[in-house]
Amino acid sequence: MTRTRVHNLNISLDGYAAGGTVTLDAPIGGAEALFGGFDGRFIHGIDAVDAPVTLDRALTTLWGQGIGAEIMGRAKFGPPAGDRPDGWRGWWGEEPPFRTPVFVMTHESLPPIEFANGTSFHFVDGPPHEVLRLAREAAGGLDVRLGGGPSTVRQFLQADLVDFMHLVTVPITLGRGVSLWDGVSGTEGRFTVESVASPSGLVHQLWNRNAPVPAG
Amino acid sequence: MTRTRVHNLNISLDGYAAGGTVTLDAPIGGAEALFGGFDGRFIHGIDAVDAPVTLDRALTTLWGQGIGAEIMGRAKFGPPAGDRPDGWRGWWGEEPPFRTPVFVMTHESLPPIEFANGTSFHFVDGPPHEVLRLAREAAGGLDVRLGGGPSTVRQFLQADLVDFMHLVTVPITLGRGVSLWDGVSGTEGRFTVESVASPSGLVHQLWNRNAPVPAG
Repeated sequence: MTRTRVHNLNISLDGYAAGGTVTLDAPIGGAEALFGGFDGRFIHGIDAVDAPVTLDRALTTLWGQGIGAEIMGRAKFGPPAGDRPDGWRGWWGEEPPFRTPVFVMTHESLPPIEFANGTSFHFVDGPPHEVLRLAREAAGGLDVRLGGGPSTVRQFLQADLVDFMHLVTVPITLGRGVSLWDGVSGTEGRFTVESVASPSGLVHQLWNRNAPVPAG
Repeated sequence: MTRTRVHNLNISLDGYAAGGTVTLDAPIGGAEALFGGFDGRFIHGIDAVDAPVTLDRALTTLWGQGIGAEIMGRAKFGPPAGDRPDGWRGWWGEEPPFRTPVFVMTHESLPPIEFANGTSFHFVDGPPHEVLRLAREAAGGLDVRLGGGPSTVRQFLQADLVDFMHLVTVPITLGRGVSLWDGVSGTEGRFTVESVASPSGLVHQLWNRNAPVPAG
């Protein structure tokens, strides 16, 4: 079995997981404070960085475990088409952290982009189950990470295609933005949820999809 | 920098992390209940097993991250010399979970044992700093795991050679056994400690050694 997993999806107290329009100066659309305390160095494991291993960082290390491909929305890859500099290759320079194929959901038709570290971006148009099929093929038996943003995760939740989510409540308010839950209800009934308060003030939630009830 | 790390050291409410004498039927000397809820499949990462990712299991995945060698006490390797069957190769059959060199601290002189999966046992006699030097050499720039039992971890704590510990309080009482803290005091002053209650009833502690104060 392979899973479709969401990691480190940070949500404000008032329910927002991203801001409004993404610009070159505002990669999360004005909601950059959501990641103010996030130590991204830990996504590749505790051995990758010389810093104390806190609960928050320990849970961050789940990000890369057994992942063979990522799916992301267009806004995670970059600003809208007209607002990007020529030759845009994403926010991450020549060392994107993914190190796997990444499927960017967009109506634009763009050629793939490849990097020396194993990352490649593939631009695909289609419904969630079709994009997931492509990502699974590319993942070679490993899990698929659903990288966000919140609108993308929401589409997959509504299609019941998410197996695991690590959500993080950040004790800040944003006042406006994009909610993961907009128009979604009853999702929690399909999952078993653990909530864990961190000494840092964050609250971590681990959502594990319940096994399907056998037919018959 | 490489670290010396302790993982999944389970401790009862009355302070015991192992039982008394280890026998073939009692690998933890009568304290087997300490690991009754432990899902060892997760030591190699969440992708290794098809089961819900709970907080307890997520923290278990730290065990293998960036580890190049393990140090263990004699009792973790097996019963006392006279009580072992001929040709004893440890508790784990032909697939020991370590997959690295393992240094077993013992006064016995025994030839090394090697396995096809990368595990090897080396039997060494010496003080903690000397055994740690050997393990670091073998670890090839990765971290060293201090695998227990509690008497072994205690020796390294007393010598101030431990950089990280994941301790787990298990809500059971044992009445007797081996304590990690026997004769140890003030250790907490050298560490920053986070305590986290798990929905399962366990309490996890993450001990990170404070950076040394620069001289001068």
